[in-house]
Amino acid sequence: MELIRRIDAGDPRALPRLLTLIENRDPAGLAALDTLYPRGGRAHVVGITGPPGSGKSTLVAALVSEIRASGRRVAVLAIDPSSPVTGGAVLGDRIRMMEMHADPDVFIRSMASRGRVGGLAPAAAGAVAALDAAGFPVIIVETVGTGQDGIDIMTLAQTVVVVQVPGLGDGVQAIKAGQLEVGDLLVVNKADLPGATDLVRLLRQSAEGLGSPGWEVPVLPVSAATGDGIPGLLAAIDRHGVVLRGGSEGARRQREAASAAVMSGLRAALERRIASETSDEMRDLIDAVAARDLAPDAAVAQLLTRLDGAGTRGSDPVGDQRRG
Amino acid sequence: MELIRRIDAGDPRALPRLLTLIENRDPAGLAALDTLYPRGGRAHVVGITGPPGSGKSTLVAALVSEIRASGRRVAVLAIDPSSPVTGGAVLGDRIRMMEMHADPDVFIRSMASRGRVGGLAPAAAGAVAALDAAGFPVIIVETVGTGQDGIDIMTLAQTVVVVQVPGLGDGVQAIKAGQLEVGDLLVVNKADLPGATDLVRLLRQSAEGLGSPGWEVPVLPVSAATGDGIPGLLAAIDRHGVVLRGGSEGARRQREAASAAVMSGLRAALERRIASETSDEMRDLIDAVAARDLAPDAAVAQLLTRLDGAGTRGSDPVGDQRRG
Repeated sequence: MELIRRIDAGDPRALPRLLTLIENRDPAGLAALDTLYPRGGRAHVVGITGPPGSGKSTLVAALVSEIRASGRRVAVLAIDPSSPVTGGAVLGDRIRMMEMHADPDVFIRSMASRGRVGGLAPAAAGAVAALDAAGFPVIIVETVGTGQDGIDIMTLAQTVVVVQVPGLGDGVQAIKAGQLEVGDLLVVNKADLPGATDLVRLLRQSAEGLGSPGWEVPVLPVSAATGDGIPGLLAAIDRHGVVLRGGSEGARRQREAASAAVMSGLRAALERRIASETSDEMRDLIDAVAARDLAPDAAVAQLLTRLDGAGTRGSDPVGDQRRG
Repeated sequence: MELIRRIDAGDPRALPRLLTLIENRDPAGLAALDTLYPRGGRAHVVGITGPPGSGKSTLVAALVSEIRASGRRVAVLAIDPSSPVTGGAVLGDRIRMMEMHADPDVFIRSMASRGRVGGLAPAAAGAVAALDAAGFPVIIVETVGTGQDGIDIMTLAQTVVVVQVPGLGDGVQAIKAGQLEVGDLLVVNKADLPGATDLVRLLRQSAEGLGSPGWEVPVLPVSAATGDGIPGLLAAIDRHGVVLRGGSEGARRQREAASAAVMSGLRAALERRIASETSDEMRDLIDAVAARDLAPDAAVAQLLTRLDGAGTRGSDPVGDQRRG
């Protein structure tokens, strides 16, 4: 496939093009992903998550510099489910970051939600798979929060870094919302601000007993703006990667990521089928429900029958040769 | 059907039983709903939404008293997507409310999420349909926030009341989050607190130009605890119901509710099918994806073929007699 050849040859425009095709679910992009997927599984995917105002973007920029100083290529995927595609703060941060790294071995991509139904999670998983197959040894996925936004960072990343800052009351908020539990590392950014020492102490208490086999969750004070603590943070991230590869936890997370990718892909496919294949009959049935001629459940039963028929008609004819 | 006969005969235990059957998707409950659904469409469904701490429960209790004073029966459905079924504040509020109204013409039901996949929205719609068919002229649906929690109050309620209070910074927050736009009435609760006058003024400015044909969104200061402003609030709710019934907006909302009920039911049905009908093959395919033998999209394509087959096998044989 031409695009894969261009990526392998190091054409700088080929990878952005592939990611766009994957995001748009272009058949050429999905076919390329099928080809590339078996190549992957070698990258260390690091998730950076934390509330707005915690300085995630600055932290990612500092980490990128540190990873480059260690001689490795690095890709950044910044996911912002709340922004429209042309919008706001994330894009601005991204542009500043690109200016900082006019470096061919740093690849930066941002992904916004576009208000798509069920589409962001599979698109993000596809982008990570493509970056992995393209040979980046480290992929940073930056996202706000966990879970609620439809992107479960744990299913994309092998190592999850939860960022907190003093002064937002976020320590307590994060503990309440269960965000800390997803972290393999807890980072207190802006550690020179008042309250940082208290927050570190609170997080250390909260982190006791968390972690996975062979790994205790460290709490690391850093200042992304000055660079203080960043070498130690990268060392801890790398150490977590080594622990994962050495034990059963890494394989468990690979399987969980695979499960999440399949499930979110299946949901998205069913949503697309709902949207595309039943619109005429759906309108009539909804009219009947609105007129109270039909209960919603009865309408759903009719639509499922219709979907089954449409799916069978549209499926690969080879499928007819299946046994059973 | 026995349960419907008991509801019609006024057996106080029959309606709670039906709602439990509907929530659990028991076939007897869904069959009863099919029978009851054409009877409905007469109730005025009033949604009460607002942030935690805005005093929604107290406001609902005050409204219930006022509706009873007007001689009407009333049902309350309190939805709390964040609580487990046995949990917390909502249940406590509900119990206090039940003690207040040891009144056979007030029916109160709370519904929590139980962590169900895709199931809360159809369950809530089913409960409203059952309460409607059971003859309650007013049904109050109380829920936190809008949209994000999976329950879109606009698709359940004909009249939406958005509650705000001074001192939480909620006026500004709600405007940012687009919550005000869903309100047919805006209520400033705890209107005796400092800042209430400013909040009322801010909301009046924000509400200008909102509303639907024949309806300008009023901003009503009330004190649910003392009862100040509650008669005026009920009068405004009733007036909105009259405006809806008189114009095209009521029919539009009925159709939107029908559409949402069908779509959420369809999603839930597909989720159940994913969960129940493919678990063996799904496990094998996920293993193959985790081992990088197969791309997630290829696994999804195989599962869709499998789902089509399962659905066709499981469908009503009468379906085979359809034309086309």
